[in-house]
Amino acid sequence: MTDEPLVIHPIGRVESALVDRGDAPKQGNEGAPDAWISIDEAFRAAARDLEAGSEVFVLTWLDRADRNTLTVHPRDDPANPVRGVFATRSADRPNPIGLHRVEILEVEGTRIRVSNLEAIDGTPVIDIKPVLGASDAR
Amino acid sequence: MTDEPLVIHPIGRVESALVDRGDAPKQGNEGAPDAWISIDEAFRAAARDLEAGSEVFVLTWLDRADRNTLTVHPRDDPANPVRGVFATRSADRPNPIGLHRVEILEVEGTRIRVSNLEAIDGTPVIDIKPVLGASDAR
Repeated sequence: MTDEPLVIHPIGRVESALVDRGDAPKQGNEGAPDAWISIDEAFRAAARDLEAGSEVFVLTWLDRADRNTLTVHPRDDPANPVRGVFATRSADRPNPIGLHRVEILEVEGTRIRVSNLEAIDGTPVIDIKPVLGASDAR
Repeated sequence: MTDEPLVIHPIGRVESALVDRGDAPKQGNEGAPDAWISIDEAFRAAARDLEAGSEVFVLTWLDRADRNTLTVHPRDDPANPVRGVFATRSADRPNPIGLHRVEILEVEGTRIRVSNLEAIDGTPVIDIKPVLGASDAR
């Protein structure tokens, strides 16, 4: 392992009605609201081909997560047996990257509205990628 | 935007027969070889429930990518019209995170063998997440 730091620069922010981690649904298919992603002006060219109707993966940096957590009770339920975080979608994990499959609903300059994004207001967005294939895995 | 740096710590490395970026297929479904992921001992507990037969997303840090690239000719083919990188899976992008959907073929302690990983030998691995749902989008 090298110790050289790998530094992420946010490319935008989530604007959402979800303001508290306790409000966020445990998975994106459980009723997360639509949200806006506001992309920084510096990345306008990178965002130029994002289109309403496209399915994309939004990668976020879950900045309130605990990076020292290696095992969890899934869904924060003590009744669920402990699992290693790489076998869960827990936000608490060594690199707290959120992976969200969403549909782009609307594009307004460098702001895009997406379906069903389970990230709280202000969450840094670090990448957007097209989904390859037509199915609905996330 | 905050300027506070978000720092990634690799959780492991790819061990692959692919040693040169030019050898890597453009997408993981185009004949990438099986590869091993060697997880750092510090993250053994996080990896404890990874099992052969599971579909997972492997997130990598594509450390040879150009982070200043905002638009590309997809698949490095000048005949393809230029597109913003957020509408492509180009490795060259502001935060060069690779997203690879793979199947776990074998687990040997903290080393796991996976199908079809289009990342070159030595690539830092930054996260592993289970796929939710049964389909094959990547």
